[in-house]
Formats: sequence, structure tokens, C-alpha cells
Amino acid sequence: MTVHTEPRPAAVPDTPPVAGLTALLHAQVQQFYAHQTALLDELCMQEFAATFTEDGVLVPAPPARPARGRAAIAAALGAAHERRFGTEPVRRRHWLGSLRVTELPDGLLSAGYCTLVTVTRPWHPVPSLGSSTAVQDVLVLDDGELRVRERRITPDHLSF
Amino acid sequence: MTVHTEPRPAAVPDTPPVAGLTALLHAQVQQFYAHQTALLDELCMQEFAATFTEDGVLVPAPPARPARGRAAIAAALGAAHERRFGTEPVRRRHWLGSLRVTELPDGLLSAGYCTLVTVTRPWHPVPSLGSSTAVQDVLVLDDGELRVRERRITPDHLSF
Amino acid sequence: MTVHTEPRPAAVPDTPPVAGLTALLHAQVQQFYAHQTALLDELCMQEFAATFTEDGVLVPAPPARPARGRAAIAAALGAAHERRFGTEPVRRRHWLGSLRVTELPDGLLSAGYCTLVTVTRPWHPVPSLGSSTAVQDVLVLDDGELRVRERRITPDHLSF
Repeated sequence: MTVHTEPRPAAVPDTPPVAGLTALLHAQVQQFYAHQTALLDELCMQEFAATFTEDGVLVPAPPARPARGRAAIAAALGAAHERRFGTEPVRRRHWLGSLRVTELPDGLLSAGYCTLVTVTRPWHPVPSLGSSTAVQDVLVLDDGELRVRERRITPDHLSF
Repeated sequence: MTVHTEPRPAAVPDTPPVAGLTALLHAQVQQFYAHQTALLDELCMQEFAATFTEDGVLVPAPPARPARGRAAIAAALGAAHERRFGTEPVRRRHWLGSLRVTELPDGLLSAGYCTLVTVTRPWHPVPSLGSSTAVQDVLVLDDGELRVRERRITPDHLSF
Repeated sequence: MTVHTEPRPAAVPDTPPVAGLTALLHAQVQQFYAHQTALLDELCMQEFAATFTEDGVLVPAPPARPARGRAAIAAALGAAHERRFGTEPVRRRHWLGSLRVTELPDGLLSAGYCTLVTVTRPWHPVPSLGSSTAVQDVLVLDDGELRVRERRITPDHLSF
């Protein structure tokens, strides 16, 4: 990995922090992610998928293919969990970091952040670490409620 | 652990994010927890206990019993630390995640979140992981200051 | 480490949460750190240094010496990264916790927080943990933009 001495690559947004973003909207975005993450960690896949727009898209790292629409998103997440853990009882947690929110035209929001996963198993107090991942979302504020229109997921170990 | 395909269990609050919560109150809750956590990590048990109401209750996972009142809370936390680490020098950190805040009737707030503990020892740069825990608080806003009236703690490894 | 039963040491600020801090400023500080951390994790050392004032100072734990000014800060961080990782490809993440913000006189802000580092390597999904560190910043709000005037860094393993 190169230490950049020139201007940063396009991946890091150039927008100044809180450009035009109200404090209320910033709080709402934070609450949205806290709530959405809790649903994912409780394996409530249907409710999690309902936090996407009806035509929402979840774009994982290739070669996995995008899931389009809530039913496909819920199914993809459930399948991924069962592929990874089978029927093993685990309690996963997603820890969010570096949440950057900026406004886009047309009432959309861009949100970039990282997640770190921990996995706790019954009777073992210390969780094991899961992957660290970069996420880039396009959010829609629709009738006072935030929803994800598009989510792009890049696990750090596949980002080199 | 079952992947839920029906409506989510009652454990995950259904309330929409930032329902009636002002941005200032949301910021204040975040600052409250940052401050409270710093006190805990500095082992300032008396000051930590003072962030509870005078009749505040700390409810750990059974079979441990609830601690009622500030003196009991400070004593319980000090005893737990000494049971776990004795006189060994350690620097613990509590990392908060998924903070969900909702308003309750009567000027109370409900706050749910998770904590992940790390433990650093002298001269070892890399901490070891401690437990991941779900916390559910009832907060009181009293004369502009937040305090915990009730805290329920469920370590993830005991939550199956 | 002693469990304190007397008033807390001076290291933990006594200021009440959100004392005079507007919700917008709190959101802006959070966005500032999310953005700054992303620049550091992308190894954009010049852009990271530009988030300091022109005469900004980065004060590491002794015996390392303070870096004064943006060029010195960018050079120190680049050198530290190359000393630690050489040309090995790694993706570091800094996870912030316990962010406490208070206003100081003269339009300055004090911000204290902790960071936990994770390091992911190509094709290994699970990162390794890096150090846990306490950071104390003095921020300047200049023409609507936040910058760091002074940063003091104390890795937890050197804090005993």
C-alpha cells in the first residue's frame, strides 16, 4: 500500500463535513444505522430488508451478485449467515465507525462508513473478531423515514 | 440461532428513529455515555455511580443481584473489577455501538446499545478483547442533566 | 491500577456534557473525526495533515518528539507507517470511542476520545488488533471549518 503524497484518490469524498446537513438529519442517520444494525444482529432479516427501498440494491464484493428488492436482500443475508454459521448459535455484532454523511442532489444522502464484526458463542465471554468492511450507501429520505436505495460492500481483505 | 423470517422479537424496539427526539437531546445522550464510559474506564467508581439517580439500579445478568443506590453500584463495580483483575494493572476501554434512543412517557428516555471491552496491559501494545454486552437503560433528564435510573446488562455469551 | 474512591483525577474532564455546545457543532465535530480518520486510514497523509492548522502540533508519547506544522506531521505519519509496515500491504482502520467535546474560551474546543486500531491484510478476512490509544485534541473553528491545533497521543500500554 502506497502512502499518498499527492491529492487523495477519488474514493475519499472531498466534501466538507456537515455541508448543508442539519444536526437533526445527522442524528437521524445515526439512529437509522443503530436501529438497522440491531435488526441485522438479531437476524431479523425481513425487518432489516424493510429498511431498504422497495427497489433497493445490496451490492456485495464480486463474484457475489447484487440482490435487488427486499425479498432478495432478506434471502441473500439469511443464506450468507447459514453458509457461514449453519445452525451454530452465534451472536454477531456490527460495530460502525467513521460515518461520513453528505447530501446529494434530489433529496438523497451519501453515507460512507466501516463495520467491524464480532462473533460471540454461548458461554465464551470473549468474542472472536470477524471482518472489517467498508460500506457506501445511498439513502433516501422519504416522508420522514430514511431508507437505503443502494449499498455497496467491500470487505477490507478484498480491497487491495 | 434462528434466522427470523417473521416479525422481529420484542427485544428490538419498533419505534422509528429519532421519534420526537431533538438533535440536542441526541447529542446530549451521546456525550453522557462518552463521559460515563470514561469514568468507568478510569475506575472512578464513585463518579460513575453519581451518573445514576440516587435510587438508581444496576441489574447484571443472574445470578448476580441488582445493586440499588449509588453506594451499592460503586461497591459492586469495584468488587467486580478486583475479582477479575486483582491488583493487576490494566487499562480497560468500553467501546459503544448501536446506540438507539427513544423517548418514553414522563420525561424518561430509553437507550439500548452494545459495549465491547478491550483490556490493555503495561508495555503490550495490543489489547486483548473482553466481552461484548447488550445494555438497556432508562434515563432521566433532571434539571438539564441526564442520569441512569435503571441499567440492565446482558453479556452476549449469556444471551442464548 | 487503583480503583478510585475519592474524586476523579484531573485527566477526566469535569465539565458537564454538551455544556453550551450546540447540536450542530457536536455533529460537525463527529463528521470532522470521521472524515479525518478516513484520510488517515487511506494513508492520505498530506490531506490528513491539512486537517491541522498551519502551525498545528502532533505530540506523540515520548521519546518521540512533537511534529510541528503540516509538512512535519505528514512526514512523521508516513515515516511511522513505513517503519511499522514497510511496503507490506495493510488496511488499517481507526475506531473512535468515547468522544467528549467541550468548549474552551476563545472559540476553541477540547475533544478527548480513544481509538482502537485494526489491521487487515490481503485475503485474510479477520483483522488483527492494533493498539488502543487515548487522544486529547484542541480544535479551532475557523471560518466554519474545524482544524486541529494540538493533538496529544497516549497509547494505553504506555499510560501506566
